[in-house]
Amino acid sequence: MSSEFGNLLRVSVFGQSHGKAVGVVIDGLPAGEELDLEELQRFLDRRRPGTGPLSTARKETDIPEFLSGLENGKTCGAPLCAVIRNADQRSRDYGELQDKPRPGHADFTAWAKWGGRADMRGGGHFSGRLTAPLCVAGGIAKQMLARRGIFVGAHLAAVAGIPDRPFPLCPTRELFDEIAAKPFPVLDGGAGEQMRTAILTAKDELDSVGGVIECAATGLPPGLGEPMFGGVENRLAAALFGIPAVKGVEFGEGFGAAALRGSENNDPFTLGDGQIRAESNRAGGILGGITTGMPLVLRAAVKPTPSIGKPQKTVSLSRLEAAELTIHGRHDPCVAHRAVPVVEAVTAAVLLDMLLEGNHGTF
Amino acid sequence: MSSEFGNLLRVSVFGQSHGKAVGVVIDGLPAGEELDLEELQRFLDRRRPGTGPLSTARKETDIPEFLSGLENGKTCGAPLCAVIRNADQRSRDYGELQDKPRPGHADFTAWAKWGGRADMRGGGHFSGRLTAPLCVAGGIAKQMLARRGIFVGAHLAAVAGIPDRPFPLCPTRELFDEIAAKPFPVLDGGAGEQMRTAILTAKDELDSVGGVIECAATGLPPGLGEPMFGGVENRLAAALFGIPAVKGVEFGEGFGAAALRGSENNDPFTLGDGQIRAESNRAGGILGGITTGMPLVLRAAVKPTPSIGKPQKTVSLSRLEAAELTIHGRHDPCVAHRAVPVVEAVTAAVLLDMLLEGNHGTF
Amino acid sequence: MSSEFGNLLRVSVFGQSHGKAVGVVIDGLPAGEELDLEELQRFLDRRRPGTGPLSTARKETDIPEFLSGLENGKTCGAPLCAVIRNADQRSRDYGELQDKPRPGHADFTAWAKWGGRADMRGGGHFSGRLTAPLCVAGGIAKQMLARRGIFVGAHLAAVAGIPDRPFPLCPTRELFDEIAAKPFPVLDGGAGEQMRTAILTAKDELDSVGGVIECAATGLPPGLGEPMFGGVENRLAAALFGIPAVKGVEFGEGFGAAALRGSENNDPFTLGDGQIRAESNRAGGILGGITTGMPLVLRAAVKPTPSIGKPQKTVSLSRLEAAELTIHGRHDPCVAHRAVPVVEAVTAAVLLDMLLEGNHGTF
Amino acid sequence: MSSEFGNLLRVSVFGQSHGKAVGVVIDGLPAGEELDLEELQRFLDRRRPGTGPLSTARKETDIPEFLSGLENGKTCGAPLCAVIRNADQRSRDYGELQDKPRPGHADFTAWAKWGGRADMRGGGHFSGRLTAPLCVAGGIAKQMLARRGIFVGAHLAAVAGIPDRPFPLCPTRELFDEIAAKPFPVLDGGAGEQMRTAILTAKDELDSVGGVIECAATGLPPGLGEPMFGGVENRLAAALFGIPAVKGVEFGEGFGAAALRGSENNDPFTLGDGQIRAESNRAGGILGGITTGMPLVLRAAVKPTPSIGKPQKTVSLSRLEAAELTIHGRHDPCVAHRAVPVVEAVTAAVLLDMLLEGNHGTF
Repeated sequence: MSSEFGNLLRVSVFGQSHGKAVGVVIDGLPAGEELDLEELQRFLDRRRPGTGPLSTARKETDIPEFLSGLENGKTCGAPLCAVIRNADQRSRDYGELQDKPRPGHADFTAWAKWGGRADMRGGGHFSGRLTAPLCVAGGIAKQMLARRGIFVGAHLAAVAGIPDRPFPLCPTRELFDEIAAKPFPVLDGGAGEQMRTAILTAKDELDSVGGVIECAATGLPPGLGEPMFGGVENRLAAALFGIPAVKGVEFGEGFGAAALRGSENNDPFTLGDGQIRAESNRAGGILGGITTGMPLVLRAAVKPTPSIGKPQKTVSLSRLEAAELTIHGRHDPCVAHRAVPVVEAVTAAVLLDMLLEGNHGTF
Repeated sequence: MSSEFGNLLRVSVFGQSHGKAVGVVIDGLPAGEELDLEELQRFLDRRRPGTGPLSTARKETDIPEFLSGLENGKTCGAPLCAVIRNADQRSRDYGELQDKPRPGHADFTAWAKWGGRADMRGGGHFSGRLTAPLCVAGGIAKQMLARRGIFVGAHLAAVAGIPDRPFPLCPTRELFDEIAAKPFPVLDGGAGEQMRTAILTAKDELDSVGGVIECAATGLPPGLGEPMFGGVENRLAAALFGIPAVKGVEFGEGFGAAALRGSENNDPFTLGDGQIRAESNRAGGILGGITTGMPLVLRAAVKPTPSIGKPQKTVSLSRLEAAELTIHGRHDPCVAHRAVPVVEAVTAAVLLDMLLEGNHGTF
Repeated sequence: MSSEFGNLLRVSVFGQSHGKAVGVVIDGLPAGEELDLEELQRFLDRRRPGTGPLSTARKETDIPEFLSGLENGKTCGAPLCAVIRNADQRSRDYGELQDKPRPGHADFTAWAKWGGRADMRGGGHFSGRLTAPLCVAGGIAKQMLARRGIFVGAHLAAVAGIPDRPFPLCPTRELFDEIAAKPFPVLDGGAGEQMRTAILTAKDELDSVGGVIECAATGLPPGLGEPMFGGVENRLAAALFGIPAVKGVEFGEGFGAAALRGSENNDPFTLGDGQIRAESNRAGGILGGITTGMPLVLRAAVKPTPSIGKPQKTVSLSRLEAAELTIHGRHDPCVAHRAVPVVEAVTAAVLLDMLLEGNHGTF
Repeated sequence: MSSEFGNLLRVSVFGQSHGKAVGVVIDGLPAGEELDLEELQRFLDRRRPGTGPLSTARKETDIPEFLSGLENGKTCGAPLCAVIRNADQRSRDYGELQDKPRPGHADFTAWAKWGGRADMRGGGHFSGRLTAPLCVAGGIAKQMLARRGIFVGAHLAAVAGIPDRPFPLCPTRELFDEIAAKPFPVLDGGAGEQMRTAILTAKDELDSVGGVIECAATGLPPGLGEPMFGGVENRLAAALFGIPAVKGVEFGEGFGAAALRGSENNDPFTLGDGQIRAESNRAGGILGGITTGMPLVLRAAVKPTPSIGKPQKTVSLSRLEAAELTIHGRHDPCVAHRAVPVVEAVTAAVLLDMLLEGNHGTF
């Protein structure tokens, strides 16, 4: 219930930021599927802290070891376990953090839940480091989906309020590949430059910025998803809010639709190549929780990194008195760009899970 | 998986818009809890189509019959089943709709999923009518929560782009009651007038408008929720997207947080009455998926009613050719105001479910 | 979690013995499946208390009303709700039972769990009456399975220690039909006579007897089920123990296998009509939790009815002192024969659920 | 759904017999619980193949490495992952087995499910080796239960039809410890000698024998478990059938109860030390799926090891013709004695999971 999601495909994530390892068990993967380890590593590298000035200085190679579930490079039906050892387990300065919860972090809620029992060094099990095993699961799911003509891609729709242009009506696989190959995952290079500047400015000011990620999936069959609580939106949202720092999820026009007229928001049906399609896609490919066959489009809001260098007001848990906290060490001034492949990963894993169920409605 | 949600408390909704009845089975309710049927009916009436010009003309009394789970007016530990008979089962004009899917509706996706097998009269199982049994479940949950000092309330944060003012930092039970007693659930009466005008204008123009609902829950203990995928946000979002027309869910600052600096978005901790609290609540009462003890705040985006009187482009499913559709009959020009108690209901049911789990993390 | 089972097909049972109604919601039924109501009623009648001397005198017609999920006699993809009103709601003599828990009944455990809050009149939600809605669900599942060449049948393998002969290696549909048409569901009429005599003797002596039910399912594809905890045995056992009075479940040779040699218990593989088959079926059609393609064979042990006319030792809950209890009214001196269709029903519902998942292992 | 069980406490097992490692992820463990690693190792050693003649010659040290979930020797609220590397990965003779499924093994059903895609070396994910990580989970659960006065123990109730004497009405912790310390886990040493002889005789004859394991849990509070499908029996059975070779599960008198009269099988209530107790325990501590407070008693039937040295009839999958198979190498002539701690482990994990839910029925 806690660090797992999925129904027929179960993804169970484990590990703490400063523990021995992080990892994932994926149960229910179809058997006989070849796993391209190089492609998977390239995908993992998109999430990895880089060498540039935009990221934390933590050095991790993030190469998973596969303990089970693979046989001669192919899935074998048994649960797949992948482990990524933590190279960098330093825990300096943690002493102070144990007593002074960082504003905007899970330090306080972990303390409220477990008293002092949680391992919160570096964020513990709440750390963004847990997105590495999520990307292992999602990277595998992406390969299986791609084999079936379903492609998942994402870009930074905004950083610090600076918008990228949105995905076109029908984004292609090539477009997804193009973004994935970029050091900074945007469609509009000019906007990307502005975003980078905003991140670096925030960093210089010992502050941080947030962003929005837009993710799309193409090639989904119409009819996927169940009514009400078993819909594509329900299941994607439930999983996407598991990505640290995500505070909002919307599909298609999302919150923007609330300000439109019905005549603007309804997507007219039309015919194209003998297929029923929609002329626009404000529904984000989902009506009544079920796929229309148009691209699935969602956006996730990522809050600004709570770890900032500026002094902040907090309290001492032991002395129950006001305190000031200055977080030392280098932290990501923005995590939104690194979260782009994570949103892809979670989306891909949920979609694969739903596809495994088949259209059981008609048996 | 489909029309159910919850873990220890399972809410299972059934019925079609033009079938015999809609209803709900609630399994896992604590035993010995008195049910105030009059209070429940008042809650259900908030959702019911009214007699005014803002709503559909469908007349339903929406009085549930309790088939099980109650004994002498109290819950008895057995699953509670409540049934609401459909008084108004007319299905005129449905013939045309069967062949011409309404843009923005689930007609097309139901057809894609089940062929012509679904009962889509009046929206079938996708109809807003299914929110009546949801309100039975949520209304019961609200009473149980209130008995424990936890209050859930909501208002229309926006309609047609016209904003209400937001909830104060710590909304009181009295404020929730006040809104609930209003015919139009807003904080700012002036904004409410503008919203009503916008709805009526849309109606006159054979169109519709959407809105945003803000919901808050007070009195929650800190430490509720599990890390990653078992968090309060995950479980609430999964259920909230089950409300027809909801296309976005956000917590605290939500998408707005993506444009803030960390120093703006982090809520400083402080002490008040010997309790650790936050000076602001941009986190919406949740950090790392776990409650902080501050009010839980969420917003749900409701798209404009897809059923509009204007002629729309669609296709004929039988002849696979372009077609025009004009939807006859009267429809809600806006459903956002009627969805206010529904958002409360779903929020309350999810929170009760999570509270039943207790803080099992420390056993 | 409590009164529900199933994954893609969810069966949720509600009602109390002396409440208004019992019923079931079935979510996830494939759409477009014709429901033969007469056949269903014949199935329900097999479970119904008869007019003969073997059963309780409670009179119930057990005709379900379908509130949702059907459209023109076919399933429509929406959850199906069926309700059976309780005709006979007398609660005489309940006063004494509230204070003196019946040995062998759930009276005491319900009290331990819920204090005096449970509605335990006539056994409340623990009553055998709850098997009526289970049979609605299972009867529908049986029809859907039969349409796909999968047949489920059962007989009384033993009553009061008197054995019926076992099913043949490959029971036919005709054999299942033959047993279902009998007033007393055994293969060997002579054994049946002895069993009836044993039941009547027990009744005359104000006592009761138990029995064993053997159930088989033919036509299942090989490869159904998942390893370890998702196997056919796991899921069937989890549901079968939900039938009141079931205290043991075994597959194939079951407990008998524990006394065999491997060379006796292993079923040799062979070829028949170009298919790989087993020469014997001590595995009960399941190896490693997964179907072999041979008939699924299971047995469920049903304890003797705890309600007996003989005076019994118990305690007064209010006075915490020893007490004697004499249960008045007429009760079933044996429920095993009436449980035969219930075991079929639960088996059919679980198998349909598993078939809906498809062989997702190979996608 | 497949290699996992539990609700608030999720146990997810991974690994293949001849892969790199086997292991387990346990999500939902209470935080701050000290883990006695030596005690855990002693528990694991009870399952480990010994050096004596009764077991396979496979040498494994079975020392788990903890990758997460522990901090300073205590649980920290995050999922615990334990990995046991496979020392002995030889796969000799596997070539023939790939084409000729072993009777009584999952070879054939794995082939039916996944084609040749499964890794079935040494039984793959179906191997008894997977019970090692199960014992890690159960050993941890046992320590947490013991801290709360709940003790779980088991013994060999029978091997090759030779019975041990049953547990006394109220087995003590000391009795459990005594059995656990024995090289052969029986109550009656004489019966144990006969069993060992039977095993060795079977071994000499290139054959194998099965057995029955009786497991008890003391100290459980009355009122644990939910009605119908959420009962203690349902959840234990669902998990126990996940232990390889288990073909039957019964509670209390189980199948024996089916041959008793109600007056014999009903446990009279009585008072002892001011507590309501039962004079006998044919219910096995469970009525209506809910604990009575008497010891929980269950039995699991373990079939004879299917791997025997005798030549057996099978088929060639590639040539679809009859074939003979002689399994080389040394195998356990009986696995029932090694399964004793495994049954304890699974029982303990399920009980801990249910205790974590608390008595949510009264909130």
